Amino acid sequence: ISIVEEVLKLNEDSRVHGVYLHLPPASLTSRVLNTLKAEKDVDGISDVNIGRLVRGDLSKGFVPPIASAVLDLLEKHGEFSNLEGKTVLLVGEGHLGLVLQYLMERRGMIALKSNWSSKSHLQKQVCVFVCMYVCSFTLHTILTSCMLEGGCKKLVIHCMWSVCYSRWLQEQQYRPWRLRSLKLQPMTPVPSDIEISRAQKPKSMNQLAEEIGLLPEELEAYGRNKAKVQLSLLDRLHTQPDGKYVLVAGITPTPLGEGKSTVTIGLVQALSAHLKFNSFGCLRQPSQGPTFGVKGGAAGGGYAQVIPMEEFNLHLTGDIHAITAANNLVAAAIDARMLHEATQSDKALFNRLVPTVNGVRRFSPIQISRLRRLGINKTDPATLTPQEVTSFVRLDLDPSKITWQRVVDTNDRFLRKITVGQASTEKGQIRETGFDIAVASEIMAILALADSLLDMKNRLARMVVGTSRSGQPVTAEDLGVSGALAVLMKDAIKPTLMQTLEGTPVFVHAGPFANIAHGNSSVLADKLALKLVGRDGFVVTEAGFGADIGMEKFFNIKCRASGLRPSVVVLVATVRALKMHGGGPNNLGLVADGCYSNLRKQIQIAHLFGVPVVVAVNVFKTDTKAEIDLVCQIAKECGASDAVPCHHWAKGGQGCLDLAKAVNEATITPGNFQFLYNIEMPIVEKIRTIAQKVYGADDIELSPEAKAKIDYYNQQDYGSLPICMAKTHLSLSHMPDKKGAPTGFILPIRDVRASIGAGFIYPLVGTMSTMPGLPTRPCFYDIDLDPITEEITGLF
Amino acid sequence: ISIVEEVLKLNEDSRVHGVYLHLPPASLTSRVLNTLKAEKDVDGISDVNIGRLVRGDLSKGFVPPIASAVLDLLEKHGEFSNLEGKTVLLVGEGHLGLVLQYLMERRGMIALKSNWSSKSHLQKQVCVFVCMYVCSFTLHTILTSCMLEGGCKKLVIHCMWSVCYSRWLQEQQYRPWRLRSLKLQPMTPVPSDIEISRAQKPKSMNQLAEEIGLLPEELEAYGRNKAKVQLSLLDRLHTQPDGKYVLVAGITPTPLGEGKSTVTIGLVQALSAHLKFNSFGCLRQPSQGPTFGVKGGAAGGGYAQVIPMEEFNLHLTGDIHAITAANNLVAAAIDARMLHEATQSDKALFNRLVPTVNGVRRFSPIQISRLRRLGINKTDPATLTPQEVTSFVRLDLDPSKITWQRVVDTNDRFLRKITVGQASTEKGQIRETGFDIAVASEIMAILALADSLLDMKNRLARMVVGTSRSGQPVTAEDLGVSGALAVLMKDAIKPTLMQTLEGTPVFVHAGPFANIAHGNSSVLADKLALKLVGRDGFVVTEAGFGADIGMEKFFNIKCRASGLRPSVVVLVATVRALKMHGGGPNNLGLVADGCYSNLRKQIQIAHLFGVPVVVAVNVFKTDTKAEIDLVCQIAKECGASDAVPCHHWAKGGQGCLDLAKAVNEATITPGNFQFLYNIEMPIVEKIRTIAQKVYGADDIELSPEAKAKIDYYNQQDYGSLPICMAKTHLSLSHMPDKKGAPTGFILPIRDVRASIGAGFIYPLVGTMSTMPGLPTRPCFYDIDLDPITEEITGLF
Repeated sequence: ISIVEEVLKLNEDSRVHGVYLHLPPASLTSRVLNTLKAEKDVDGISDVNIGRLVRGDLSKGFVPPIASAVLDLLEKHGEFSNLEGKTVLLVGEGHLGLVLQYLMERRGMIALKSNWSSKSHLQKQVCVFVCMYVCSFTLHTILTSCMLEGGCKKLVIHCMWSVCYSRWLQEQQYRPWRLRSLKLQPMTPVPSDIEISRAQKPKSMNQLAEEIGLLPEELEAYGRNKAKVQLSLLDRLHTQPDGKYVLVAGITPTPLGEGKSTVTIGLVQALSAHLKFNSFGCLRQPSQGPTFGVKGGAAGGGYAQVIPMEEFNLHLTGDIHAITAANNLVAAAIDARMLHEATQSDKALFNRLVPTVNGVRRFSPIQISRLRRLGINKTDPATLTPQEVTSFVRLDLDPSKITWQRVVDTNDRFLRKITVGQASTEKGQIRETGFDIAVASEIMAILALADSLLDMKNRLARMVVGTSRSGQPVTAEDLGVSGALAVLMKDAIKPTLMQTLEGTPVFVHAGPFANIAHGNSSVLADKLALKLVGRDGFVVTEAGFGADIGMEKFFNIKCRASGLRPSVVVLVATVRALKMHGGGPNNLGLVADGCYSNLRKQIQIAHLFGVPVVVAVNVFKTDTKAEIDLVCQIAKECGASDAVPCHHWAKGGQGCLDLAKAVNEATITPGNFQFLYNIEMPIVEKIRTIAQKVYGADDIELSPEAKAKIDYYNQQDYGSLPICMAKTHLSLSHMPDKKGAPTGFILPIRDVRASIGAGFIYPLVGTMSTMPGLPTRPCFYDIDLDPITEEITGLF
Repeated sequence: ISIVEEVLKLNEDSRVHGVYLHLPPASLTSRVLNTLKAEKDVDGISDVNIGRLVRGDLSKGFVPPIASAVLDLLEKHGEFSNLEGKTVLLVGEGHLGLVLQYLMERRGMIALKSNWSSKSHLQKQVCVFVCMYVCSFTLHTILTSCMLEGGCKKLVIHCMWSVCYSRWLQEQQYRPWRLRSLKLQPMTPVPSDIEISRAQKPKSMNQLAEEIGLLPEELEAYGRNKAKVQLSLLDRLHTQPDGKYVLVAGITPTPLGEGKSTVTIGLVQALSAHLKFNSFGCLRQPSQGPTFGVKGGAAGGGYAQVIPMEEFNLHLTGDIHAITAANNLVAAAIDARMLHEATQSDKALFNRLVPTVNGVRRFSPIQISRLRRLGINKTDPATLTPQEVTSFVRLDLDPSKITWQRVVDTNDRFLRKITVGQASTEKGQIRETGFDIAVASEIMAILALADSLLDMKNRLARMVVGTSRSGQPVTAEDLGVSGALAVLMKDAIKPTLMQTLEGTPVFVHAGPFANIAHGNSSVLADKLALKLVGRDGFVVTEAGFGADIGMEKFFNIKCRASGLRPSVVVLVATVRALKMHGGGPNNLGLVADGCYSNLRKQIQIAHLFGVPVVVAVNVFKTDTKAEIDLVCQIAKECGASDAVPCHHWAKGGQGCLDLAKAVNEATITPGNFQFLYNIEMPIVEKIRTIAQKVYGADDIELSPEAKAKIDYYNQQDYGSLPICMAKTHLSLSHMPDKKGAPTGFILPIRDVRASIGAGFIYPLVGTMSTMPGLPTRPCFYDIDLDPITEEITGLF
């Protein structure tokens, strides 16, 4: 039969040094086994090993005896003796590669994983040895030439039957998940969020990971109910088509919020647990400021929640803490540097910045980068001219032009404006500055927009913290701190996996506050999720506040950075908010007014980008059927593809089935996505476009300060960055009390800032506080912990 | 045979509702099985189940089919139908209890674990159902009466043969660990710390946990190489005798440190990996401030390190971040409260603090606690007199007497003294304050001293943040924030498990800075470790800086709080530091002078507490044999039980064998521990005792401010707290440049503070900065991350 024929071919193929037969147990006949030449029998199939082979299921993980056998073969061939401590490029995806990596590391070698299709990688690395895992001889030929070009000394070809491999590949890459959903038995009246969350026992992260096709080695547990997912997943699944991309946005909200997070969660519960589509929700990590302040948690609510909700709301996996640490290290570096420059001569600074260590004076790589930017192409400290020394050692920061603020993840209004440096040890170098809430840090924006560790590191290095007295931007790299920032953020870049009340997966990553930041979850979380759900799956991601700000930034900033395009926008509306836009409560006419003003406008904004809209009416128990029907009817009239009521808060995914079906329907016709503005338009024109087309303003008005800043940014070549407006979320305009869809106003641009690392220009519309405060009775009054049961009360 | 007889007895015993026979496979004969009455056959032993039973090894973990069978039986008997949502007290240790707990939780019940011997627990809880696991009928009788008193409705007795159970108990509770140590192959010259760390592949946390007798359910992984350990371990092992307790302290160090951490790690590597004693190292989590500032990491060094060192030094499991968040929430609450009190009437404050929710106005528990402290024994808000309302709503904090500072875990010297509240939104409520380094927070001291979640919560509530205008202390509970603090700290209280380079276990918990804090690792980490190592094992814990401060605080504060008593002190000395104390380099005479001054004095300090001393000379490659021999000789002359050179930095545990043997030897003779002072002595006398007996001062001199504070503390009844001196670590005196063993000085007490939550009085000796600064060229210049390999460079 054909297996035997193939084995005979492999016996004769001189390029094949070893063969591992991975076959269904039934095909592992003695005839097949006896055909394989002993010297090519990589796994030394014997009576003992056959047993193991039969039990070794590729989809289950490691098959150590085989890998061990491969290593033994390599040692026999003398390949390994020279490899101790060397860098080994492992080419190959899948389990065997991982097993090999593990075994090699145990033997003191460093295994460097790489994507086998990435030719440039192969050429860059010192390839000492390559072990492949190929599915066909065509592919094998391509790889061989690739690797020889790349300087490999030796190949060991590891073959596998195409049929078997294809099946494995397919299993790896796309399948409807075997998701065991958690059953809900919603109670009436609906208990508190923490009670609902506590009543549901979450699945273990290992189980969830296995169900959605994550490999054990791609998961890093954080406690029992959270895990970070490694970015290497993107490499493993790079050939996998993306799933469908759904954005949840909202109409202009009341200060209480209209339930975008609950809709997001209810929708994925419906899609995954009820309609059996692979689906992921991508949520933003909440700030602990509001959790202990006014708003409470952000894990959804009622029967549409992420569980355990207290772990979602507290610390999570420490990403915001890492951002705080990184942000404040930059701040400390700025002030300390100014002090040292103010109190030392050029020579003293140079001797300290480039010290003689063991008789040698050397620039660190980060200092060489600074020299390059200064146009000094030298690497020997001794050769710098006095003038070059001066420009190297003096950042010469202008204290009045430092834009970098410190941050805390606490609602601490007294830190909005402070004076620092008042201790005598700081020698009178006092200055005014302030703290922002941590999630408003540029580092948070970078976390959300970076698409790899390298990208994040580069963005961190580019961050501009202020301007020198001669008008030059000063960056984090100039301060020498950018490597340390990347180190502080190395784990934060991995999205956190959690689950909904119904046991469906969510990623939690990056931060909120779409008014003062861009307020979207991370590009990486979305990308990982799109690969994990696969072709027919759904990723539901959320943009903060009203569609005029969160969604606009999602399209113009995040989609530009990620290259991803959403299939449909879910626009969340509530009767409560529509009444507010209509002008008051208790009147169907006012609801209609709200629909024809704010809801219509927000639908139109989504259409500006060519994306279809499904309106989700988040039903409150006080809403009447007439009100709901009216909203749905007008929404469709205003161009929504569909409009449906949602009952996820009271019923979980079951209450969101209509929405899930409508969303699925809307993704069938491909959209016609377009950006709102060309990135090369002048800054002022980009701002005007947003103001007029999105907000409905007649025009914009720039303060002299804003004008000067724009001139400066143009001069510094920052002109072609997208725009991230800082505007109130409580109105389409800049005036929080103008509800509905205001017109006939001029949008005042008070100031303009630049987040060069994150990559956007940041106009301030009116007065936006970047640090919330605590009310007279903050949430924390109700929050408590039972020290015996360890149960938390009062979080909501 | 006797088994059959025992079964016959069980058949007839009406108190026994079910029997599960856990026997060695060989004893599970059909005769035994057939003897058991069918209605008592809890696990329904059948052909299938026997197979499972035989495979089910109690030492390996879960035995689900059995537990499942137990549950089925209970359901059959109608016990379960009424239990949904009820609290079930599970009495019983060991695996079966855990399995039952798991299964019950899956069926919607709440299982409350409790220690079976704790009668008070039984009585307090609503016992609906009890499942026991008893080893003898005597014990069973005790338990039965206990439970019936406690109001249990029904008992199901779960029996097990004593022999088998005892064997299991023994296995659970004490055994020499089956530790697979990691092999070291030290290189010469010794590579950088990060290179050494990276070259060693750590064991998985699960493996380490299993080796040292932790159950899987007691472990919470944080990434791959760190895990938190649950405090329930203390209950499980409460009958286990503690291991031997070893304190590592040092002579007065140079600013570079003399290697206490490396000695601690080298010693446990020697004890565990080489001498095969169960041993744990208890280390303190380093502050990220110095990591990016001057000193670098604190994971040990050379071949005596905790690995991965970068995870030890960065974020760890977020404990310090949690402390920062909790500390700063208190600070925000203070300033916000002062603002609200300054701008609102009593009535407005009352209406906001005690709002009407759904028509009902109610005090929260935290508010009732405040009312109690005010002497108002009312619970109905409507019944408060206007005067009571006033005293309830107004904390009336005196802005000039707020002692609470904000913190960051960054060396940010410009925050030492700042003015806050300068934004117009804060309505002119500006005040001067400052930031401390996070590890100096009182919350860190509480974390280190708390012995349970309840204790931590109580201490957090007691923290005094300032004084009212009428001179009353204002606490965190008065601010309403203490429950939230406990919630923020609920995970931080669990110690973090990591491993040394040789694969031996360490706990990392609580923080450094013995000069401005008490600088010891946590009581809980030490207690958990002492149980885990068991009777013949060793726990090596570290006290910061010189023995005059770290060790003094260890004895007088930490041992008082924990009740633990150390067997031996290891005093770390270096020739480098001894030369400094002797007055200069390169002279054997100066080394001797250093020994006869500082080393002798530090040995004497340990002897004040009745604890024997082993001197560990941390050998540097520049030290001569003559120098080392001299130090060892003089140390013994000065009363050390032994003195040995240590080569752990270059050789790992192998280099610390002599020390390990000397420590073991020293623990054989029981010590004669005593405190230095009686806690009831007046504050001034306690300070004077430390100054004279420990530091060698002639007397103390109190500033007027210090005197006034002491009077105030006495008046507030804080007089019987121990003392935590804030003193330079660079001299036995308050003058950093006075080396050796200074005498003839008066110790000036500049000010006195009180950490009421942590539980100590905190005199300030001279000027101690609570916020380090960054040098001209901070460590961060060298720290970098390779974005492809994810390897960190430049950490040391």
